[in-house]
Amino acid sequence: MATEAAGLAEALRLQADMVRRLKQEQAGTEEVAEQVAKLLELKGRLGVDDGRPRFLLKTPKGTRDYGPKQMAIRERVFSTIISCFKRHGAEVIDTPVFELKETLTGKYGEDSKLIYDLKDQGGELLSLRYDLTVPFARYLAMNKITNIKRYHIAKVYRRDNPAMTRGRYREFYQCDFDIAGQFDPMIPDAECLKIVYEILSALQLGDFLIKVNDRRILDGMFAVCGVPDSKFRTICSSVDKLDKVMWEDVRSEIVGEKELSTEAADCIGEYVRLHGGLDLVEQLLQDPELSQNKLAREGLGDMKLLFEYLMLFGIADKISFDLSLARGLDYYTGVIYEAVLLQQQNDREEEPATVGSVAGGGRYDGLVGMFDPKGKKVPCVGVSIGIERIFSILEQKMEASKEKIRTTDTQVLVASAQKKLLEERLKLISELWDSGIKAEVLYKKNPKLLNQLQYCEDTGIPLVAIIGEQELKDGVVKLRDVATREEVDIRRENLVEEIKKRTCQP
Amino acid sequence: MATEAAGLAEALRLQADMVRRLKQEQAGTEEVAEQVAKLLELKGRLGVDDGRPRFLLKTPKGTRDYGPKQMAIRERVFSTIISCFKRHGAEVIDTPVFELKETLTGKYGEDSKLIYDLKDQGGELLSLRYDLTVPFARYLAMNKITNIKRYHIAKVYRRDNPAMTRGRYREFYQCDFDIAGQFDPMIPDAECLKIVYEILSALQLGDFLIKVNDRRILDGMFAVCGVPDSKFRTICSSVDKLDKVMWEDVRSEIVGEKELSTEAADCIGEYVRLHGGLDLVEQLLQDPELSQNKLAREGLGDMKLLFEYLMLFGIADKISFDLSLARGLDYYTGVIYEAVLLQQQNDREEEPATVGSVAGGGRYDGLVGMFDPKGKKVPCVGVSIGIERIFSILEQKMEASKEKIRTTDTQVLVASAQKKLLEERLKLISELWDSGIKAEVLYKKNPKLLNQLQYCEDTGIPLVAIIGEQELKDGVVKLRDVATREEVDIRRENLVEEIKKRTCQP
Repeated sequence: MATEAAGLAEALRLQADMVRRLKQEQAGTEEVAEQVAKLLELKGRLGVDDGRPRFLLKTPKGTRDYGPKQMAIRERVFSTIISCFKRHGAEVIDTPVFELKETLTGKYGEDSKLIYDLKDQGGELLSLRYDLTVPFARYLAMNKITNIKRYHIAKVYRRDNPAMTRGRYREFYQCDFDIAGQFDPMIPDAECLKIVYEILSALQLGDFLIKVNDRRILDGMFAVCGVPDSKFRTICSSVDKLDKVMWEDVRSEIVGEKELSTEAADCIGEYVRLHGGLDLVEQLLQDPELSQNKLAREGLGDMKLLFEYLMLFGIADKISFDLSLARGLDYYTGVIYEAVLLQQQNDREEEPATVGSVAGGGRYDGLVGMFDPKGKKVPCVGVSIGIERIFSILEQKMEASKEKIRTTDTQVLVASAQKKLLEERLKLISELWDSGIKAEVLYKKNPKLLNQLQYCEDTGIPLVAIIGEQELKDGVVKLRDVATREEVDIRRENLVEEIKKRTCQP
Repeated sequence: MATEAAGLAEALRLQADMVRRLKQEQAGTEEVAEQVAKLLELKGRLGVDDGRPRFLLKTPKGTRDYGPKQMAIRERVFSTIISCFKRHGAEVIDTPVFELKETLTGKYGEDSKLIYDLKDQGGELLSLRYDLTVPFARYLAMNKITNIKRYHIAKVYRRDNPAMTRGRYREFYQCDFDIAGQFDPMIPDAECLKIVYEILSALQLGDFLIKVNDRRILDGMFAVCGVPDSKFRTICSSVDKLDKVMWEDVRSEIVGEKELSTEAADCIGEYVRLHGGLDLVEQLLQDPELSQNKLAREGLGDMKLLFEYLMLFGIADKISFDLSLARGLDYYTGVIYEAVLLQQQNDREEEPATVGSVAGGGRYDGLVGMFDPKGKKVPCVGVSIGIERIFSILEQKMEASKEKIRTTDTQVLVASAQKKLLEERLKLISELWDSGIKAEVLYKKNPKLLNQLQYCEDTGIPLVAIIGEQELKDGVVKLRDVATREEVDIRRENLVEEIKKRTCQP
C-alpha cells in the first residue's frame, strides 16, 4: 500500500505540475474569453427582433465613413498636396496595409503598444502599418534602393484614444514625402520644409508656424544637463508632450516617474523655453556648455545651414527653431520639424495659441540600416502631412460657409417631356457617353419633366437635353440651361459640341 | 494508509478531470502555439549576425509593393476607370478598411473562412473588409440612404491561395460602381454592363465577353431539376466553379459531396451547357419545365428586357447569356454578370479560350435590408472591376513593348556649369516652384554638369535651366533641350513662360 500511495503521490505531483503549466499557458487566453463573454452579453442585450438579428450599425471605434460631400473636400485637399509633391519631382509608391509583425517591432518606442495586430489564423504574424515611414524603409532595404524621392498617400492605423471632432482617428490618412540618399547636408531637409510651407499656404488654413529642432541638439542638451545616455529616448518622449501639457507636468514626470535629478530637470527646463531664429542658433553656438558637446555642435551647425537655405527659399519667417520640439518616434536622428496652425491672434494675448500639429517629420538616417542584412545605411529625410486635421478644419469651414459643393461632374441630364420615350433617352445618352460627355438619365420609364428638372437643381447639373416626339421628328434636341431656364433647339449632330462648349470641358 | 490512498486516488481523479478540461479549453490555442514554435524555429534558423537581428525582408504572403513604374501604370488604369464612373454621374465614398466582425458575418457563404480577423486587443472585434459591397450596404442602412449612385476604389482582403503571377492577391484593389434605389426594371442593370463595356474597351485589353445570368433563372433551373430548396446555394457554389473546372468535376462534387441525385445533376448539366443571346432567352421562355417556374419566368422576362436595353446601348454583341454563370457570393438576388478576356483566337480551336474574369457583379436587393433594424430593403445593382488582373496584363504588355514610362512629371532641372552656385540654384528653383513649374535640382553643392545632364536623360526631364557667372551677370538663364541639345539664353523674367510653352503645360 505504501508503494501504491507513493506512486499515487508521485502521479499527483506530476499532474499538479501539468495543471500549473496548463493554467499558465491559458492565462493569455483568458483575456480573449473575457472579450467573448462581453460580446455575448452585448448580443443578448440587443436581442432578436421579429426573428431578424439586430446589428450594431456603426463603424469601428475611431473610424468614419466619408460620404460624397466629405470625399469632394478630401479629393480637393489630396489634389493640392499631390500637385505639390509632383512639382518637386516625386515619384509615387504603394505598400501593403499590413506588414510582418517583426518589421514593425522595435521601431516606435513607447508608441508600439498602439499597433494593431492581426489574429493568427495560421501562417505569418501580421500587423497593420503604424505609419508609412517604416514600410518605406523596409521597401528601400528589400529592393536595395539607395536613392529615391517619393510620395505615398495611404491609411495608417493606431489604437489610440480617438478625438474625432479634432480630427484624431484610429484609421487615418498620411501623406508622406521622403528623400532618400547620400547628399550634401540640409539641402533635402530644406526642401521638405519648403513643401510644408507650400502645402499649408495653398490650402489656405490661416496662419501657421513650422517648429524645427534637431535630435542631436536635444541629445547634447540632455548630456550637458546630466541625463544618463540610457534615459535620452524616454526623457525625449516626455519633452514631446510639451505641445499638450505644461512644463510643470513634464518636469514632475521626468523627476518622479523617470527618476531624473531635479537639477537635470531644471537644466532641461531652462533650455526648452528657448525658441527663435538664426539668432538663437548663433547664441547657442556660443553657449559655454552646449558648444562643448560634439552632437549639439553638429546639430547647431546644420541648423545654421538650414536657415540659410530657408532664407533662399523665402520661408524663414515662418520657421521657429524651438528647443521644446522633440517628436515622439524613436527613429529620428537629425533635424525634426512640426507645423502648427495658429489661431486668429487675440489682441489681449501676447502669443498666438496653437491649434495643433498639421504636419511633421525629420531625418532618420538609421532606419533603413535596421532592415539591411549588412546594416547598410540609407540617409532619409521626410515629411508627413496630417491630412485628417486639415480635413476636419476645412469640413467645418465648408459647413459654416454653406457653400454648395457638387459631388458629381455630370454635364447634362437626358430628359423627355412625354411618356414612352425611355428607349429614345437611352439611345441618346449612349451617344453622349460614347462621345465622352458626362451624362445621366433618370431610371424611370416615364418620369415627369418637373422631376427631371428638380433632379438637376438638386445635384447641380447645368444642362438638360430634352427630347420629345417633335424633336425626334426634326432631328434636334432641346437644350435647356438649368440656371437661366433658356431653351434652344440644337441639331442632334451638333449636340456634343454644344454641350462641351457650354460646360467648358474640352 | 487505505484512507490516505483513497484520498490521493480521489484527488488524482479530480486533477485528471481538471487536466482534461484544461486540455479541451486549450485545444483551440494549440494551433497558436504551433505557429509560435514555427516562428521561433525560423528566428533561430535566421540567427543573429554580428549582433544585428536579421529581418525577414519581405511583404506578407499574397501582397506586393508597387514601385514608381507599377504606380504609373496603375494610375493610368485608375484614371480610365474613374473617368468612366464620373461620366455616368457617380459620386464617390470611402469606408474604413475594417468593419465590426459581425457586420461581415453571414454575408459571403462558403467564402467567409477567407476573412482576415484582427487580434482581440481589447475593445471591439474587427475584421478586414472582404469586398466593398457589404460595407456599402452597411453604409446605406446606417445613414438611411435609399438612393445613390456611387463608386468606391479601395483595397480588400482575402486569405486565399494567392496566384500572384496571374494577378491574384490577398490584398487587392476593387473598383466598384453601384446604383442603389427603387427604379424601373433593368435600366440601372443595363448601365452597369455599359460601364464594363466602356472600361474594358478603353483599356485596350483585347477582345472580351460579358457573361450574364440571373439568380432567379438559376434557382428556377435547380427547382425544375429537383434540387431541394435547402441546397440551392451550395449547388450554386459548385456550379460557380465551371469557369475553372470541367462539368464532370462539378458533377461528381454535387453528386458525391453534396449528395444530389444523378438525375438532378444531369438535368443541371443539360442547362449549364447553354449560352447565347436573346434567342436563347426566347427559347427558354418556351421551355416546358422552366417556363412553369415563377422565379425562372421572372428572371427570363427581365433578361429579355436587359437585352433590349443593351441593344440600344449598342453592346449586345459582347454579351452572352450563359446558364453556367453562378457567381460565388450569397447576396445576389437577380441578374449577375462576369466579364472575361478572350485569348487571341486560335484557328484550330472552335471557341476562344478565356483568360479569366476581369469584372463581375450583379443585383443584390436583400443586402441592405439585412442591416436595417426594420429590414427595410434598398434594391442595389453594381459592378466590380478586377483591377489587379488587368494591371498584371498591362504590366506584362509594357515590359514586352519596352516602352519607357516616365515616373515623374518634372519639366526642368535647375543646373549650374560652375562650382559654388548652390545658393543661386536654390534661389532659381524656388522662383520656379512658386510659379507652379515642376522642377528639380541635384542635392549636391558642386555637381558636375555632365551628371546633371545624365540625370535628365535617366529620368526623362525634357529641359535644363543652366546658370553660370555670366548668365547671372546678364540676367539670363541658358535653357537646354535635353533631346536636341539646343541651348538658348532666355531672360530670367521670361523663363517661366518659356518652360510652360515648351512643355505644353499651362
